Amino acid sequence: MQKLFPITRSLTGTGVRETLVYLGKLLSYLTIHEVPSGTVAFDWTVPDEWTIRDAYIEDESGLRVVDFQQHNLHVVGYSEPVDVWLNRDELEHYLYSLPDQLNAIPYITSYYQRRWGFCLTHNQRLALPHGRYHAVVDSDLKPGVLNYADLIIPGESDKEVLLSTYICHPSMANNELSGPVVTAALARWLQSLEKRRYTYRIVFIPETIGSIVYLSQNIDHLKRKVIAGFNITCIGDDRCYSYLPSRAGDTLSDQVALHVLQHMDDDFKRYTWIDRGSDERQYCAPGVDLPIATIMRSKYGEYPEYHTSLDNFDVVTHSGLEGGFIALRRAIEIIEQNCYPKVTVFCEPQLGKRGLYPTLSTKKSAKQVRAMMNLISYCDGSRSLLEIANLIKEPLWELQPICDRLVEHGLLVCEK
Amino acid sequence: MQKLFPITRSLTGTGVRETLVYLGKLLSYLTIHEVPSGTVAFDWTVPDEWTIRDAYIEDESGLRVVDFQQHNLHVVGYSEPVDVWLNRDELEHYLYSLPDQLNAIPYITSYYQRRWGFCLTHNQRLALPHGRYHAVVDSDLKPGVLNYADLIIPGESDKEVLLSTYICHPSMANNELSGPVVTAALARWLQSLEKRRYTYRIVFIPETIGSIVYLSQNIDHLKRKVIAGFNITCIGDDRCYSYLPSRAGDTLSDQVALHVLQHMDDDFKRYTWIDRGSDERQYCAPGVDLPIATIMRSKYGEYPEYHTSLDNFDVVTHSGLEGGFIALRRAIEIIEQNCYPKVTVFCEPQLGKRGLYPTLSTKKSAKQVRAMMNLISYCDGSRSLLEIANLIKEPLWELQPICDRLVEHGLLVCEK
Amino acid sequence: MQKLFPITRSLTGTGVRETLVYLGKLLSYLTIHEVPSGTVAFDWTVPDEWTIRDAYIEDESGLRVVDFQQHNLHVVGYSEPVDVWLNRDELEHYLYSLPDQLNAIPYITSYYQRRWGFCLTHNQRLALPHGRYHAVVDSDLKPGVLNYADLIIPGESDKEVLLSTYICHPSMANNELSGPVVTAALARWLQSLEKRRYTYRIVFIPETIGSIVYLSQNIDHLKRKVIAGFNITCIGDDRCYSYLPSRAGDTLSDQVALHVLQHMDDDFKRYTWIDRGSDERQYCAPGVDLPIATIMRSKYGEYPEYHTSLDNFDVVTHSGLEGGFIALRRAIEIIEQNCYPKVTVFCEPQLGKRGLYPTLSTKKSAKQVRAMMNLISYCDGSRSLLEIANLIKEPLWELQPICDRLVEHGLLVCEK
Repeated sequence: MQKLFPITRSLTGTGVRETLVYLGKLLSYLTIHEVPSGTVAFDWTVPDEWTIRDAYIEDESGLRVVDFQQHNLHVVGYSEPVDVWLNRDELEHYLYSLPDQLNAIPYITSYYQRRWGFCLTHNQRLALPHGRYHAVVDSDLKPGVLNYADLIIPGESDKEVLLSTYICHPSMANNELSGPVVTAALARWLQSLEKRRYTYRIVFIPETIGSIVYLSQNIDHLKRKVIAGFNITCIGDDRCYSYLPSRAGDTLSDQVALHVLQHMDDDFKRYTWIDRGSDERQYCAPGVDLPIATIMRSKYGEYPEYHTSLDNFDVVTHSGLEGGFIALRRAIEIIEQNCYPKVTVFCEPQLGKRGLYPTLSTKKSAKQVRAMMNLISYCDGSRSLLEIANLIKEPLWELQPICDRLVEHGLLVCEK
Repeated sequence: MQKLFPITRSLTGTGVRETLVYLGKLLSYLTIHEVPSGTVAFDWTVPDEWTIRDAYIEDESGLRVVDFQQHNLHVVGYSEPVDVWLNRDELEHYLYSLPDQLNAIPYITSYYQRRWGFCLTHNQRLALPHGRYHAVVDSDLKPGVLNYADLIIPGESDKEVLLSTYICHPSMANNELSGPVVTAALARWLQSLEKRRYTYRIVFIPETIGSIVYLSQNIDHLKRKVIAGFNITCIGDDRCYSYLPSRAGDTLSDQVALHVLQHMDDDFKRYTWIDRGSDERQYCAPGVDLPIATIMRSKYGEYPEYHTSLDNFDVVTHSGLEGGFIALRRAIEIIEQNCYPKVTVFCEPQLGKRGLYPTLSTKKSAKQVRAMMNLISYCDGSRSLLEIANLIKEPLWELQPICDRLVEHGLLVCEK
Repeated sequence: MQKLFPITRSLTGTGVRETLVYLGKLLSYLTIHEVPSGTVAFDWTVPDEWTIRDAYIEDESGLRVVDFQQHNLHVVGYSEPVDVWLNRDELEHYLYSLPDQLNAIPYITSYYQRRWGFCLTHNQRLALPHGRYHAVVDSDLKPGVLNYADLIIPGESDKEVLLSTYICHPSMANNELSGPVVTAALARWLQSLEKRRYTYRIVFIPETIGSIVYLSQNIDHLKRKVIAGFNITCIGDDRCYSYLPSRAGDTLSDQVALHVLQHMDDDFKRYTWIDRGSDERQYCAPGVDLPIATIMRSKYGEYPEYHTSLDNFDVVTHSGLEGGFIALRRAIEIIEQNCYPKVTVFCEPQLGKRGLYPTLSTKKSAKQVRAMMNLISYCDGSRSLLEIANLIKEPLWELQPICDRLVEHGLLVCEK
C-alpha cells in the first residue's frame, strides 16, 4: 500500500497503468485490458486519456505556492492544459479549498466538463497575498485508452463470485487505496487455496466508467454466472464496519455480509440502497441486477477525511485493513461452505455413545454442545447452514467445524 | 357550505331533496334517484319518509323553551308526531342533553324504533322550572321515498374510482356537511380536466341505509369496475389528518391514502378497521369487498364537538376544507398517474450530456438530482411509481415531473 | 397428586409401573405397554431396568446420615449397586449438593453412564464430620422393560390431537408430577364430553427415551393423523404462564397456545425453540415434524426450585394446577370449535329487527355488540374464527357464544 500510495491515479493514464502493473507482479494471471477513448459503453463514451506531467501556481518571484509535485491532489483531476498569468482575484475562480477543514486539500475532478483548477488547504489560500500569479497545468487530454485489469481464479463450478474494486483515486488511503490492496490480498489468499468451490472474478477498474465499460463487455456472461459478489471499497480504517445492500437487498451476498458483520461488530452501520454511491450503482442497475453487496469499514462520504489529503495512513491502519480483510474472507468462506445439512436419524441422535459430548464440562464446552444440539435440531435439509446459523445466533465460522464433525460421524449429510 | 348548512337533513325527506337539488346546480349531470319506502335492500328495508314541520316545548305562558326553529338539532331525528301536556318530571324522559358539555345540543336520532324527543343544552335543561309543558312535534312518518344522487364522469377506461359521501346530517359542519361539499369540489375539479384515465362515480347518499340501497342496486357493476375509492367524511377541520383502512387494508386506495398522508402530515392518525363507523362498513363488507379507504381530518367520534351543535364553522375552516380537498385530489392524481416506469439503458444514464444536471448547484437542485437518480435506480418495470416513491421516500407529486422529464428524454418508458 | 408424589419413579422400574397402574384406575381404556431392554429405537437403545430397594450412607456408629427412605432424591437416579466403606475425603466424589441452595437436595441422574452417588443438602454435606462412612446402594441394573401407557379417546374424525406427558421424575411437583396429573384431568374431561370432533391420543412416557420409543413404534401413523398437540409439563405452579413453540413455530398448536395465553395473562413468557428441553425435541425433530407446542406455568430450568427437593407442594398449588388445566382445556376447546364462519347477507345485517341488540345498554352489552359487529365484519369464509378472534383482539371463548347465536339466527354459516 505504501508503494502504491504516491502514484497519481485517475480515470485513465500512466498512474492507472503503473498501479495495474504493480498489482500484476503480486497476482499471477492478472490481465490488463485497454479500451480506446471514444468507445461507446451503454449510455456512456470512454473519455480522452489524461496525462499530467506538472502543475503549479508561481508567484511573481517564481516561488511555487501550490505545487502538484508536493501532493498530487493539488491539481483538479482531468485539468486541461493551461499557462496563464492572473491576478489574485482572477485566480480565485480556479481555487478549491475547504473552509471547514483548514489543513485539508480537497479531492476534486472534472471528468466530463473541460476545466482546470487547483486544490489547496484553506490556510494556504488565505495566506496568498495580492499580486500576479502564474498558473501552469502541463497536461494532455487526448485520445488514448482506458485501462482495467481482471483475474479469473477457477473453481470446481463455473459459477462466479465477483470481487470488484477501483483504481482511479490518487493519494488517498481509505477511499480508495484500501480497496485494491485488500482485494489483492483476497486474490492471493484465494489463489493459495488447494481448491475452490466457485470461480472468482477479480476486477480492478476505474470507478463508474470502468464498471460501465466492464459490464458492456461482459454483461451476458456475468448475468449467467455471477451468484454473489462484493464491491470492495473503504476497507482500511479501524473505526467501524459498514454494510450497504444490493438493490434487491436480499441476495446471497447480502445475507452473507449481514451475517459476518452481525457477528464481528454489534454496532456495524447499516446503510440502505438510497445511500449508495459506488460501483453497485452499475452492478445492481435495473436490467443488470447482479447480486453485489458492499462490506466496508468507514463508508465514503461518512468520515471527515473523505476525499481530502487527510485520508492518509493516520486513517488507514494495519488493524483496519486486517479487519476488513477478515470480514471479506469470512464472507467468501461462507459462500464456499454454505450447504443444506440434513440429519440422518429420526429424533435426536445419541451423542454420548459417539463421544460427541465433551468429557470435561466447561462453560465453553457447554456452549458448544448447545450449539451442536441447536444445529442438529434444524438440519432438515430445507434450511441452509447460513439460515440455521442465523436462527441459532451462532457465527457460521464456529458452526462449520461442528457441522464437519457431525458429517464425519455420519449424523449429517450436506447437500451443496 | 354556508347555504347548505341550515337545511334540516335526515335519512329521508325534504331536506335531503333540497340539498341534492342544490348540489345538482353545481354539478352537471348529477342524477337524483328515489327509492320507495318498504323497498328491500339486502337485509334491510327502506323506512318511511320523515317530514318535520315544527317541534317545540312551550311552558304554561306559551313561551317556547325548546324550539326546532332555533336549531334543527333540538328535535330527535325521526321523531313521531306528538302533542301533549306533561309536568316537568314526565318531560325528563323525552329530553337529551350532555352533562359534560353544558352548552352543546346533542344530535340524536331514532330511525328504526318509534320515539319522540327533544335535544337541548344541559344548561337549558337545568334552567327548566317545575310546571306544566306543552310538547309538540309536528311531523309525519309515512310511506314516501329515500333519495340519493349520483354522477358518472367518464374517463378513458371504464374502470371506476368511487367517491361516496352522505347527506343525512342536519346542521353540523365537520360531520357531515364537509363531506358533500369537498366531494362536490372534487367532482367539479374532475369535470374540469381535459381527460381522465379512469371513470369517476360520485355518490351522495344517506349513511348506512343509503349505501346499502346503492349497493343492492349496483353491486355486480361495482364489483366488476371499481378499482379504488374513498368514503369522504369529516374532512373540514384543521386539527389533524386521519386514515381509516379498507377491510382488506392493502388496496390501491389504502396505499395511495397512506402515501399522501405520510407526506402531508408526519403526525397523521392511523386508525384500524376496528375503529370503522361509516359507509366503509357496507362497501367493504364480506362479499362486497370494494377497495374503499377513508382519508379524514378529525375522525367522527374522536373530536369533542362531534355530533353536537358545536360542530359548526368554528370547527370547520377554510384551510381545513382546503387541506382535505388537497389530500383527496392528490390521492386521485396518484391513481390517475401511477405507472410502471422502466429505464431504457443499462447502467446509470449519462445525465450531464442531456442537461439533466442543474447548471446551478443549490440545495434544492441537489435534492432533485438525488431524487432523479434514486428514481432511475428503481425503474426496472416491476415496481410502480407509487412503490418507488415509497422506497425513496419522496412524495409522488414531486417525483411525477421528474419522471415526465426522463420520459421526454427517452430515458424512461412508462407502462400504465 | 398427593398419592402419586411419594413414588420413586425413574426411566424404568417399579415406580413407573405403580404410577401407570394408578393412572389406569382413573382413566378407563388406558393401556400399559412394555418394551424390552435392548430394543433399538432410532439412534437409541432401551436401557436396562433399574430397581432401587434402598440406599444410604451410614457413619461408623451405624447412623444413616443420608437416607433414601427419607427422600428418594437422595440417590442418584440409575445408581449401580455398591457397598463400600470410604473415608470422608473419598466420599466427596460421590456427593452432589447445591452451594447456592443450602437446603435443597438436587435431582441427579446418570442413565447412560454407570455411576453411583448420593444427593444431599449442602448444609447436610457441610455437617458431615471426618471419619469412615458406609455407602450402600441396594439396586439392580439388568435387562427388564421400559413401560409407558397410552389412551385413545375417539372422536368424529380420525385426525388426532396428541397430549404427551412424562412419568420418569421421582418426588418433584411442578417438574414433573404436575404434567401427568393435569393430563389425566384433561383425559377425564375429554372422556366426559358427549362427543368430540377429533380423536385424542394421550401418552404417558418416560422423557426422551420414552418419546423416542413411542415415535419409533408409531411414527407413520402419527405423521398422517396428528393435527395438533401439546407436550404437557411444568403446569402446576401459580407464578406465570409460559409458551414454547414447536420447531415450525406456526402450527395450529402454536396459534392456539398463543391465543389462549395472550388472553389469560398479559405477561406470559414467550420462549423460543432455542430454549427447548423436553419431548418437543423428539416430536418436532427433523423428519418427525409433529405440530407439538408447549403451554406451561413456570418453565423447567427457569424457577429456583427446579430439579430439587424444593419443587414440592409449596410450589405447586391448587390454583396453579387449575390455571394450567384451564389453559390447556381452552386450547383444546379452540381446536374443537375452530371453523370458517361466513355471513349469509350482503352488507351489515339489521341486528335490531332480530333482537340481537341488547335492550338495556350497559358497558358490557356495548362491548358485546361491538364484538358481534367486528366478528361479522370479518366473516367472509376465508378466515378462521381463531384468526378473526386475533384480528379483533377478543378471546375465542367469548366470541364462540356470539358466533353460535348468529348461526341460530341464520346470519352465519360455519364451515369446519
